[in-house]
Amino acid sequence: MEELLDALLRECQPYTAHGKVATYIPELAKGDPSDLGIYVLRSDGRHYQAGSYRKHFTIQSVVKPILLLLALLDNGEEVVRAKVGVEATGKPFDAINVTDSPLLSAHLNPMVNMGAIAICTLIHGSSYEERFQRLLNFTRQLAGNPEIDLDEAVYLSEKRTGSKNRALAFLLKSYGMLEDGVEEVLDCYFKACSIRVNSKDLANIAFVLANHGKALQSDEQLFPPEYARYVNAIMMTCGMYDGSGDFAIRVGIPAKSGVGGGIMGVVPTRMGVGIFAPALDEKGNSVAGIQVLERLSRRMYLSIF
Amino acid sequence: MEELLDALLRECQPYTAHGKVATYIPELAKGDPSDLGIYVLRSDGRHYQAGSYRKHFTIQSVVKPILLLLALLDNGEEVVRAKVGVEATGKPFDAINVTDSPLLSAHLNPMVNMGAIAICTLIHGSSYEERFQRLLNFTRQLAGNPEIDLDEAVYLSEKRTGSKNRALAFLLKSYGMLEDGVEEVLDCYFKACSIRVNSKDLANIAFVLANHGKALQSDEQLFPPEYARYVNAIMMTCGMYDGSGDFAIRVGIPAKSGVGGGIMGVVPTRMGVGIFAPALDEKGNSVAGIQVLERLSRRMYLSIF
Amino acid sequence: MEELLDALLRECQPYTAHGKVATYIPELAKGDPSDLGIYVLRSDGRHYQAGSYRKHFTIQSVVKPILLLLALLDNGEEVVRAKVGVEATGKPFDAINVTDSPLLSAHLNPMVNMGAIAICTLIHGSSYEERFQRLLNFTRQLAGNPEIDLDEAVYLSEKRTGSKNRALAFLLKSYGMLEDGVEEVLDCYFKACSIRVNSKDLANIAFVLANHGKALQSDEQLFPPEYARYVNAIMMTCGMYDGSGDFAIRVGIPAKSGVGGGIMGVVPTRMGVGIFAPALDEKGNSVAGIQVLERLSRRMYLSIF
Amino acid sequence: MEELLDALLRECQPYTAHGKVATYIPELAKGDPSDLGIYVLRSDGRHYQAGSYRKHFTIQSVVKPILLLLALLDNGEEVVRAKVGVEATGKPFDAINVTDSPLLSAHLNPMVNMGAIAICTLIHGSSYEERFQRLLNFTRQLAGNPEIDLDEAVYLSEKRTGSKNRALAFLLKSYGMLEDGVEEVLDCYFKACSIRVNSKDLANIAFVLANHGKALQSDEQLFPPEYARYVNAIMMTCGMYDGSGDFAIRVGIPAKSGVGGGIMGVVPTRMGVGIFAPALDEKGNSVAGIQVLERLSRRMYLSIF
Repeated sequence: MEELLDALLRECQPYTAHGKVATYIPELAKGDPSDLGIYVLRSDGRHYQAGSYRKHFTIQSVVKPILLLLALLDNGEEVVRAKVGVEATGKPFDAINVTDSPLLSAHLNPMVNMGAIAICTLIHGSSYEERFQRLLNFTRQLAGNPEIDLDEAVYLSEKRTGSKNRALAFLLKSYGMLEDGVEEVLDCYFKACSIRVNSKDLANIAFVLANHGKALQSDEQLFPPEYARYVNAIMMTCGMYDGSGDFAIRVGIPAKSGVGGGIMGVVPTRMGVGIFAPALDEKGNSVAGIQVLERLSRRMYLSIF
Repeated sequence: MEELLDALLRECQPYTAHGKVATYIPELAKGDPSDLGIYVLRSDGRHYQAGSYRKHFTIQSVVKPILLLLALLDNGEEVVRAKVGVEATGKPFDAINVTDSPLLSAHLNPMVNMGAIAICTLIHGSSYEERFQRLLNFTRQLAGNPEIDLDEAVYLSEKRTGSKNRALAFLLKSYGMLEDGVEEVLDCYFKACSIRVNSKDLANIAFVLANHGKALQSDEQLFPPEYARYVNAIMMTCGMYDGSGDFAIRVGIPAKSGVGGGIMGVVPTRMGVGIFAPALDEKGNSVAGIQVLERLSRRMYLSIF
Repeated sequence: MEELLDALLRECQPYTAHGKVATYIPELAKGDPSDLGIYVLRSDGRHYQAGSYRKHFTIQSVVKPILLLLALLDNGEEVVRAKVGVEATGKPFDAINVTDSPLLSAHLNPMVNMGAIAICTLIHGSSYEERFQRLLNFTRQLAGNPEIDLDEAVYLSEKRTGSKNRALAFLLKSYGMLEDGVEEVLDCYFKACSIRVNSKDLANIAFVLANHGKALQSDEQLFPPEYARYVNAIMMTCGMYDGSGDFAIRVGIPAKSGVGGGIMGVVPTRMGVGIFAPALDEKGNSVAGIQVLERLSRRMYLSIF
Repeated sequence: MEELLDALLRECQPYTAHGKVATYIPELAKGDPSDLGIYVLRSDGRHYQAGSYRKHFTIQSVVKPILLLLALLDNGEEVVRAKVGVEATGKPFDAINVTDSPLLSAHLNPMVNMGAIAICTLIHGSSYEERFQRLLNFTRQLAGNPEIDLDEAVYLSEKRTGSKNRALAFLLKSYGMLEDGVEEVLDCYFKACSIRVNSKDLANIAFVLANHGKALQSDEQLFPPEYARYVNAIMMTCGMYDGSGDFAIRVGIPAKSGVGGGIMGVVPTRMGVGIFAPALDEKGNSVAGIQVLERLSRRMYLSIF
C-alpha cells in the first residue's frame, strides 16, 4: 500500500503543473503549486501516507460537509432541509444562483457558497464568535487533533476581499433567508473556510464519515449514521462543484474539494482519504488530487458503483 | 388647460386605490396612497397645476436621469458609455441582472438600480459626500429651487434596509466594475434617492430636458442638447422599468418613475410634467400617475410617435 | 437634399466593409456587401434617392411591423396585446426567450422572432396561404407597388434551414401559445420574411406610418392613427433588436432592420426612409445603414427626442 | 423477504393517492393511479415480488440508461463524453436548458430529454428504424425477455403531441449538435420511450447493472464493468431529475424513473429492483415508488453511503 501511494504520487506529480493556485484570495496565491500529498486511514486502523501530507493549508470548502454535519446535530434533519435544499444547482460554486423567479431555500445547496452561508445561521451559539468556536471544536473532535486552529492571515485576506460572498449574503438577506447581520454571518463563514488542516486531518474526518459517525480509537458515536449518509450523499452529488458528475464516473466516491487544494474522500465502511495539491482546474478542483483519487479508486476498486 | 387638469385628476382619482405605496423602505410605507397631484410647465412659460402638487416626496429613481446627466457633464459621452450600457434589460428595476456568463458594462443600464449605482462612481468629487452635494446642487439648479434638500429619515431608512442594493453593489465590485468602497458608493446612491422634491420641481427639471438643456428664465444652457437627447432616449426605452414598452404605446413620451410616487414626463420642445401619486403597480410605477399621463397625452396629442 | 444624400453615401461607403452579409440562410449569403442605397419620401411629397436604391432584397424582419399592423387591423389592440406583449426582452432577435418559469405572452414581443411567429396566427384567413396573400397585398398597398412579390429562392432556402425558428415555434406550441400546425404557421412566417422589396418600397411604407396611416397620393386612411403610434412606439423600443437603446440615442427615430440588409425609418409627421446595405454587425443590423441614418438625423434634426 | 415486500406495499399504497398519472401524453392518462408493484432480483439468484408486478407499462425515461449503455458499447466512452456531458443541469427533465450563451455538449446530460435525444444519434444503424431495433433487442437481452415490444398506441400518441421534445431537438439542430433529420431522430426517441415492460423486466435490467455487466443465468458479460459504473454513477447524480439529491439522501441507490410510472433501482453487487406505480409527483417521479424504495433501503441497509 505504501508503495502504491508513492507510485501514484510519482505518476501524478506532472499534473500539478496543469493547474493554478487560487488567487482570488490574495493570501492563497502564496501556495506552492507543486505540492502533492496524501493520507489514507483504513477501517482496520492502519494508515498510509506519502508526499507533503504534513503540510498545512486552509480547509476552505471542505468545511462545508462539517458545517452541514454540525447543523444537522444542532437542529435535526427537518430544520436543515427547510433552510437549505439538496439538489444540484448545475452551476459553479460561487454562482449567483438566482433567476427571474424569487429565490427559495430549495434552490440552495450546502455544498456551494450561498447554501453554506445559510447553513452558518443554523449553527447554535449566543454569538457568531461562539458558533465558530463550536465549529472549530467539532472539527478538532472529528479529526482527533486539538491543535487545529484558524489561519488568521487567510481569514483576514478573505474578509477584506470577499465581494462575491458579500453579494451572495445580501441576496439571501434581501430574500428574507438570512435573519442575522450579514457581516457577522460572513465573519463566521470566512473563519470557517480559514481553518488550517493537513491531509492527515482530512483523512481522519473522512474516516468518521466512512465509519458512519463512529470515531476510530474511542469508538464513540460522534453523530448518528443517518447524518453520515446525508452528508456522504450530498458530497457524491455536489461535492466537486459542477465537476461532480465527472468525478462520480471517474472516481465514484463521495468527496469534497476546497480552493485551498484539499480534497476529502470518503469510501463508505472502508477508508478515509485526505489529499493536498493546491494547483486547481478552472472549476476550482485540485487537478493532481483528482488524478491521484482516480487511480487509487481504480487500483483498489473503491468506486461505490 | 386648468380645467383639463382638474378633470383628469377627478377621472383618475379612483385609480389611486388600485396600487400600494412602497413598503420595502419602511419610511416610504407612511405615504398616503390617495395623494394625486400634477404640475405642467409649457414652453411658452405658462404653468398649470392641480391636486397635491405642492406635497413633498422623495425623488427615488427619478434621480437616475439627473445622475446620468451629471455623469455626462463630468465625463463626456464616451466614458459614460464605456461604464454603463444603454440597452433594455427586459427585467424588473432591481433585477439581479446576471446570467451564467460574466457581467459586462454593456449589460448595465442607467435607468435600473445596478447601472445607477455604477453611475455614482462617475460623478466627480474628492469624496462621496462631495459627489452627493454636487448632485444635490445640480438638481436644485435644474429645478430652479435652492430649497430642495435631503429627506434624512428616508435616507436612513433606506441605508438600514437596502440589502438588494448592497447585493447589486457587491456584484459590481466582484466583477471589477466598482473601484471604490461599496458602502460609500451606496451611501451616495441612497442619499441621491432620498432627495425631497414635489411635482413642481419634477416639472421644472423635465422642462429643461424638453428644452434641450436651456433653462426657462435665465435662458442659460445648463447642458448640451445632445445630452438631453441621450437622457430622453434612454427614458423612452427604459424609464418605466419593464413597463416601458407599454408606456411608449399608451403615452408616448420620455418619462421616469420612482417608488416615491413621482413621475417626470418630458415632451420634447413642448413641456415638462411632474406627477405625484404614490400608490404603485407591481412594476413599481405610479398607477394613477400613468392614467393621468395617458389621458393628458391623448387629449393634447403629446405622443412623439 | 440630393447632395446631402450623395455626400452621406460617400462618407458611409467604407462602413460596408465593417460588416458581413447574413449567412445562416444560404441564399442570403449571395448578397453584395458593398451595396448601399437610400430613398427618402417627405411629407411635402418630394422624394430623394441615392446609391443602389433600386436594388431588390428580401424584407426579412422589416415585415414585423407590417405583420403587427395587419394583426391590429384584423383583431384590434386588445386581442393583439393579449397574445403578444410589448416589453423589450433584453436579448438578441432569435433568443430562446425562456427561463425556468413558464413562458407567458407578456414575454413575447412582435419585433423579435418568437413574437412575430405568434403574430402570424392572428392574421385572418381561411388558410395560412390566404393569410400570407393578405399580408402580401397589404404590403403592396402600403408601398403603393403592386409588383412586390415573394422571393421564392430565399423562401425555400429559409424553409429548409430554419431550425432555430422551428425550435421557437415548437416552444410556443408546447406552452399552448400556438393553436395551429407549426409547419403551416412557419411557412407563412418564412414567406413573410421573403417578400422582395427595395429601398423605395420601404420608404413608402415608412411614410404611411409617419403620416399616421394616411396614404400619400390617395389621401386614404389605410389604418387608424393609434395603430401607427403603437407600431412606431414598439419600433422605437425594440426595432433594432438589442441595439435599440443605442439607436434611440444616436439616431432617435422609430426604425426596423432586417437581416436582408434593409432598414425602414419613420420620422413621425415628417418623412419615411428606406435603406439598403446588407453588410450586418453582430446584432444583425446594417452597419453602413445605421451610419447613414445617424448622420441624416444629426444634419436634419430628425431625432424625436 | 416476501413478507417485507407485502408489508411495504400495504404501507405505501396510500401514497398512490398523492400523485397523478402523466397526462401530457394523452395515452398515458389512461393509467390506473392506484397500481403499485415491485420485483426484486438478488445476487444469489432469488427473486421476490408483490402487487401488480406483472402489469405492463411504457418504459419512458427508464430507457435513458439503456440508450446510454448502447451508445457506450457502440462508440466507447470518449465519443459519448464528447457528445453529451455528465453534469447535473439543476433543472427539470424537459427544461429548455439554454441560457444566453451558446449551447455546448457539456450542458447536456443523458438522463434528461435533450441529452437523451442527442444520444439517439450515437446508436449505430443504417437507418433510425434499425437503430431502434438494435435498442429494442438490447433491452430484450438485458431483461432476458424476448417478448418485450413497442407499445404502438403510446408511441403514436407521443409522436403526435411531443412539441416540447421537438423544440429541444430543433434547438440541438440549430446549435449544430444534431446532424440527422429531426423527425427521424425523434421517431427513434419516441419509440425508445414507448417500449413496453413490467417491473420484472426492470429488475432484470437493473440486476445486470448491479452485477457490473454480467447476466444472471448465462454468466455472459453483456458490457464492460466500467460502463456499469458510468451508468450507475450518472443515475445516482441525475436519475431522478431534479429530485436526485433528495433521493440520494433518502434512498441512496442509483435509480432511474420514467413518467410511465416505472423506477429501476440498482444496488451495486447486491440486487436489481423494478417498481411500477404510475401516480407521479410534480417532478415526474413515482410517489409511492419512492416511498417503497426508501423503506426497502432503510430496512435492508441498501444505501451505498
